[in-house]
Amino acid sequence: MRVCGDFQLPLHFNCSEKKFQMAKDEIPVRFGIMGCAEIARKVSRAIRLSPNSTLYAVASRSFEKAREFALQNNLPDDIKLYGDYTELLEDPFVDAVYLPLPTSLHLKWAVKSAQKRKHLLLEKPTALDVKELDEVLEACEANGVQFMDASMWYHHPRTEKMKDLLSNTELFGLVRSIHSSSSFCGTPQFLESNIRVKQDLDALGALGDTGWYCIGAILWAMDQKLPTTVTALPTVARNSAGVILSCSASLHWDDEQTVATFFCSFISHETMDLLVSGSNGTLWVEDFIIPYGENSAEFSFTTGARFLDLHVGWNVKPQEIRVDTPLPQESMMIQEFSGLVKGIKEQGSSPDGRWSCTSRVTQLVLDAVRKSIENFFEPVYM
Amino acid sequence: MRVCGDFQLPLHFNCSEKKFQMAKDEIPVRFGIMGCAEIARKVSRAIRLSPNSTLYAVASRSFEKAREFALQNNLPDDIKLYGDYTELLEDPFVDAVYLPLPTSLHLKWAVKSAQKRKHLLLEKPTALDVKELDEVLEACEANGVQFMDASMWYHHPRTEKMKDLLSNTELFGLVRSIHSSSSFCGTPQFLESNIRVKQDLDALGALGDTGWYCIGAILWAMDQKLPTTVTALPTVARNSAGVILSCSASLHWDDEQTVATFFCSFISHETMDLLVSGSNGTLWVEDFIIPYGENSAEFSFTTGARFLDLHVGWNVKPQEIRVDTPLPQESMMIQEFSGLVKGIKEQGSSPDGRWSCTSRVTQLVLDAVRKSIENFFEPVYM
Repeated sequence: MRVCGDFQLPLHFNCSEKKFQMAKDEIPVRFGIMGCAEIARKVSRAIRLSPNSTLYAVASRSFEKAREFALQNNLPDDIKLYGDYTELLEDPFVDAVYLPLPTSLHLKWAVKSAQKRKHLLLEKPTALDVKELDEVLEACEANGVQFMDASMWYHHPRTEKMKDLLSNTELFGLVRSIHSSSSFCGTPQFLESNIRVKQDLDALGALGDTGWYCIGAILWAMDQKLPTTVTALPTVARNSAGVILSCSASLHWDDEQTVATFFCSFISHETMDLLVSGSNGTLWVEDFIIPYGENSAEFSFTTGARFLDLHVGWNVKPQEIRVDTPLPQESMMIQEFSGLVKGIKEQGSSPDGRWSCTSRVTQLVLDAVRKSIENFFEPVYM
Repeated sequence: MRVCGDFQLPLHFNCSEKKFQMAKDEIPVRFGIMGCAEIARKVSRAIRLSPNSTLYAVASRSFEKAREFALQNNLPDDIKLYGDYTELLEDPFVDAVYLPLPTSLHLKWAVKSAQKRKHLLLEKPTALDVKELDEVLEACEANGVQFMDASMWYHHPRTEKMKDLLSNTELFGLVRSIHSSSSFCGTPQFLESNIRVKQDLDALGALGDTGWYCIGAILWAMDQKLPTTVTALPTVARNSAGVILSCSASLHWDDEQTVATFFCSFISHETMDLLVSGSNGTLWVEDFIIPYGENSAEFSFTTGARFLDLHVGWNVKPQEIRVDTPLPQESMMIQEFSGLVKGIKEQGSSPDGRWSCTSRVTQLVLDAVRKSIENFFEPVYM
């Protein structure tokens, strides 16, 4: 039985709701967390809130660190703690691994996880390049395990609602332009010592971190259609080790009248913007990656906008659309992932390839941006 | 004395207010409108609503057209009507000319206006290129007349309020990224026959029309600082005559960590977006060119945004800021222009060069975008 303990979850989703759902769903997917990154705190809570999953084990490089993580997050006493990643993978009761290690360690541990037939929820950026990612995906395929990267925003009901509107020919029409921005202003301490600014740990820097979301959002709006041309724009900030702190790029599709641009940064105020303009409508969202609040999220949409007579105003203003969510988006992600895992385990389904594809096109574009930066902002043809 | 007649102005700014102001301001600037373009309807109303100006004359290529314009817009009976632009310029009572002719006619008639010592309010785009604009500006300077382009949004009190915030080091910090979008979806009739899609009349197409605003907004956010590099992005739509219907570009400043992008189009849903991100704050406005309504306008701003613990929400949401305006923004423009003209006429002031500079940097960047498009999207170094 799951016990949430007396930890005060700082949200409005309570445990009783989950217990109720758990009664109908008796064999939860047992997660092992591999690496006690800051983000693992959020995901451990998401696993505990998701009705079809349970947090079974935590592994760190030392037993002490794993125990500290368990204490810090009020994990139940019966949680398995490992001071070695391999031990976690040897545990036959672990169904799935959530892997938030630094990017440079993804290849090794993701492949090992797959080989041990652990379903794989991999933190983004998925790999240092698509070659590495392909090794991971091949290992998952060879071992029949589900793959998903841990981009949470895809799983918020708002995202589906937005997609419905963008897919509506009458209300939205053809995509004409997309702009996305994802940034935060790192503290001096972050910029000095965080894993994400270290060449040997997360060499992709802001492009791999916040840029992953921008690229993902653009591809999401384009139904994962790979652009024909990717061009980095010539304003790039790097730290002394050469890690990207800020960059931007444009994406183009030869057979579409669509242009997409994005800006990602560790040295700019918090933004999570997505603006998608079509021939008949416009969609705006200012918090697409992490909603302002957990219970619901909003976006704005207009269609058929035109000027009043004399051009002294508009016939419509953007409509604000609120979408409630039954669980925080990260729990929605866990729930979806675990549903796929249960399908494989209990009904003999095949892994769902959709999430591998989504990650792969994102990684391909990310690689192209990096290549364009290295080639002095020359276009990269995909 | 000004008479507004019984024309029902479709707004909440009433004539009595103006008459009251007129009593204190006895010598209004007398405007002649040169060319009965659609936009002249809006500006004629703006002149009539502005407390320090009067609509004195209208000229068209034929007397009939001028009369039709006067009737259509319920202009007072004593308005002077001319069937020839030269006649308007010969009228010694005309203080200032508003010139909304097709862009290819700007050079000729703007220079003639200046030579006749008429102060010049010139519709945008100001010229086909900066060489032409320089001829216009030189003629204005040589004849001591005020120059201003008719970009109305600079004159809304909202714009000043936004600039105050962007200039606040603590709340906003350094500009990191700017994105602007200005578009509308032209009807088949517009795309077939409007002046703005004709090679011989408005060869700059969407770049000159909606792009003028995007470039202007970016430069406004950058305090009119010319970028070092301008690069058109490789998604351009043209009509069969080669006129640009849609394009986009990026701007860069060598000594700033700033990137700016814009999208302008005649084939995309109505947008007028401006997003400016700084190191400490973010500003959004969705109707920067023409506010949704005439009496007030809004924008959003956040500062000091960060995530809550566990990254499950934000500490702040964007604050919506409403700014009321005493007059529609186009009347604010007329009022400012007329104030400068009165200063020159009545107090011997020199023309204010600020507006020439604003137009000139905009035109320079516009030329660079066009050049980059012609050079297969190679960067243009300014």
